[in-house]
Amino acid sequence: MESKKRVVVLGAGFGGLAFCQAFRHPAAEITLVDRQNHHLFQPLLYQVATAGLSAAEIAQPIRSILRDRTDLSVRLGNVESILPTEKRVVVDGNSLPFDYLIFALGGRTSYFGHPEWEAFAPGLKSLADAQRIRREVLLAFEQAENSLDPKEQQRLMTIVVIGGGPTGVELAGACAELAQHVLRQDFRRIDPGQTRVILIEGSHHILGQFPETLGIRGEEQLKALGVEIRCGTLVREISQGTVTLQSGEVIEAGNILWAAGVSASPLTAALGAPRDRAGRVQVRPDLSIPDHPSIFVIGDAIALVDPNGVTVPGVSPAAIQAGQHVARILESELDARPRRVPFRYWDKGSMATIGRSAAVAKMGPLEFSGYPAWLAWLFVHLIFLIGFRNRVAVLWQWFYSYLTYKRGARIITGLKW
Amino acid sequence: MESKKRVVVLGAGFGGLAFCQAFRHPAAEITLVDRQNHHLFQPLLYQVATAGLSAAEIAQPIRSILRDRTDLSVRLGNVESILPTEKRVVVDGNSLPFDYLIFALGGRTSYFGHPEWEAFAPGLKSLADAQRIRREVLLAFEQAENSLDPKEQQRLMTIVVIGGGPTGVELAGACAELAQHVLRQDFRRIDPGQTRVILIEGSHHILGQFPETLGIRGEEQLKALGVEIRCGTLVREISQGTVTLQSGEVIEAGNILWAAGVSASPLTAALGAPRDRAGRVQVRPDLSIPDHPSIFVIGDAIALVDPNGVTVPGVSPAAIQAGQHVARILESELDARPRRVPFRYWDKGSMATIGRSAAVAKMGPLEFSGYPAWLAWLFVHLIFLIGFRNRVAVLWQWFYSYLTYKRGARIITGLKW
Repeated sequence: MESKKRVVVLGAGFGGLAFCQAFRHPAAEITLVDRQNHHLFQPLLYQVATAGLSAAEIAQPIRSILRDRTDLSVRLGNVESILPTEKRVVVDGNSLPFDYLIFALGGRTSYFGHPEWEAFAPGLKSLADAQRIRREVLLAFEQAENSLDPKEQQRLMTIVVIGGGPTGVELAGACAELAQHVLRQDFRRIDPGQTRVILIEGSHHILGQFPETLGIRGEEQLKALGVEIRCGTLVREISQGTVTLQSGEVIEAGNILWAAGVSASPLTAALGAPRDRAGRVQVRPDLSIPDHPSIFVIGDAIALVDPNGVTVPGVSPAAIQAGQHVARILESELDARPRRVPFRYWDKGSMATIGRSAAVAKMGPLEFSGYPAWLAWLFVHLIFLIGFRNRVAVLWQWFYSYLTYKRGARIITGLKW
Repeated sequence: MESKKRVVVLGAGFGGLAFCQAFRHPAAEITLVDRQNHHLFQPLLYQVATAGLSAAEIAQPIRSILRDRTDLSVRLGNVESILPTEKRVVVDGNSLPFDYLIFALGGRTSYFGHPEWEAFAPGLKSLADAQRIRREVLLAFEQAENSLDPKEQQRLMTIVVIGGGPTGVELAGACAELAQHVLRQDFRRIDPGQTRVILIEGSHHILGQFPETLGIRGEEQLKALGVEIRCGTLVREISQGTVTLQSGEVIEAGNILWAAGVSASPLTAALGAPRDRAGRVQVRPDLSIPDHPSIFVIGDAIALVDPNGVTVPGVSPAAIQAGQHVARILESELDARPRRVPFRYWDKGSMATIGRSAAVAKMGPLEFSGYPAWLAWLFVHLIFLIGFRNRVAVLWQWFYSYLTYKRGARIITGLKW
């Protein structure tokens, strides 16, 4: 009896998980490696950061999702290096050989050559990031309440969000709502209604990947929530509590949140394939890498223009489709059939939420905003949230917050005294 | 117009919060100081530690609970010192003067003169403690799955719980269920069903504060869950991964959890009143301290035998009753009426849960165990859980776990790589 083919999957994000769920072959055994024990529903991470949901509501243990897959084992560990020609990866000092490798390690926050800004302006990629932002935003209000200096209070009650893509827009809208509605009656000396939320975007309109009309509608909805928008200006410098714009404006803020850039995992370098400036791998049309047909890259780490001329975007539907595509390729290969046609991205549409009852959405030729877009956003995000329990819990949270303007997860943990 | 009396409350646990909710007087303004931003429902903390509930489900922001009380302000901060004769406390370097002081800082884990054991055997008093235990227990299973050494696997899959009071019993039962049912199908190399949970208790039966028959019933129910019980033996030494008992037995364990001792906050020393060995203040019958009739101590920090000859226990109903008692005293005093009769503790009964459908309960002359006790436990804990949203969320979690044996909060956060 021939021994089974070892398929190693790096990363249990949308891409890696979709591959595992779609791939099944009697001649293969799969090892899924991740440095977290949970799959994270990243589109709702901003809700954890702004105290709308708690960590467990948007995360699901990987072992639990895949518990019925006896052909698959999950390994909690940190990928240290990848050796394509030796066909092995190193996880926590241990060698893990593979016949096929699926690289799905996703992206990380990028500070455009200014890694020192991370200390002053946290990004939002992991649960730990979200919990850090929640702690720091809530603590700034506590410090403002304890302060006797009105200028210091206003500084603490200023939140700068850098980057006008969906994450930045969602964070800015949720911060404004947190201050205007949720915290409004909670303090005695300060009025959280005086909070300034400032969104900074380098191009001329926010939500650049949407049609311009939707970007403008998004700006109107954000302004209605009290968010100040600075478009067409870049950040020159960030230091503790201070953002300096290229326009010369200096903003003092209690919290600075970074939602401006994403780059691929630095481990893409180990693949030896050509990469773009953000570290994304220039994969072949079937998602494998040059010279190594048994190594595939999926998710946010790929740079690819598909046969329809569409640049595959770094969004979860693209990662899921790529994972499913590679699953079909591998199944064919193990059945000694030829590889399938090149990967084609199917754009199901995109949406960004701005606040309670406010959003923008584009689905094919349809563009809409406001309440209908928000309902669509709610529906789509509930449908795709993995795990029945989470879905019910999140629906309940949203329903309760919608009725009462209260947020359930306003708990500061990890305080050090 | 006379200035208002400044009432300062230290601690937003059951005692401090009950005082604030019961006390209201037009001549008083209240400041509630806590070093966390949330009130914690401590009786369910073991569920957070064993991944049954998430932090936000048993914690409620203090500001949110008291948001309608314009006569009350909440201050997030660390109490550094108390100066009874100067009538002020110091919070984060700032002086806070008072006319009346309510000391409700509760207890902390005590290691009986061995503070060095804390590093090897975490206690369970705060959300951070619970999250630490959850992370370390879940990680031990992950490490066992990655290990190739059967002896090391068995060591990692051994959990020692020290202390057979309600917290220890609840932790031991929940750990056994986590291993036997929740994690059972999640691993490929290890069988979590082989997990050893060992409960160590110094006296001859667990649950010493219950009648002996209930202690024995509790032991039977724990054994049915697979928990090994060592009664009548004390711990001689704890080091990294090893517990040595006075019987000479040495147990190697992946996790050692400490539920054996509680002492009062070290700040009780600043009150200048006589204290017992655990640091509890020997209060006067009205809960004030000798020489300072305007300083009251409530909750776990008091050592008092009430006029009925009952030693007031360190449990939440006693803290709540004490808080309400002091509220009545202060209202009388501000109305220039004499102080009320001494504090009397009303024992409504006590219960401890052991696992799914297993518990012991004593209510007046009634003693019961098993399923009826478990239902009573469920009912009482839901009723007293503060916050409607939390109650619905927790009920849903319990219902879901009961049906599926799944636990929703099996998320490891705070991993460092």
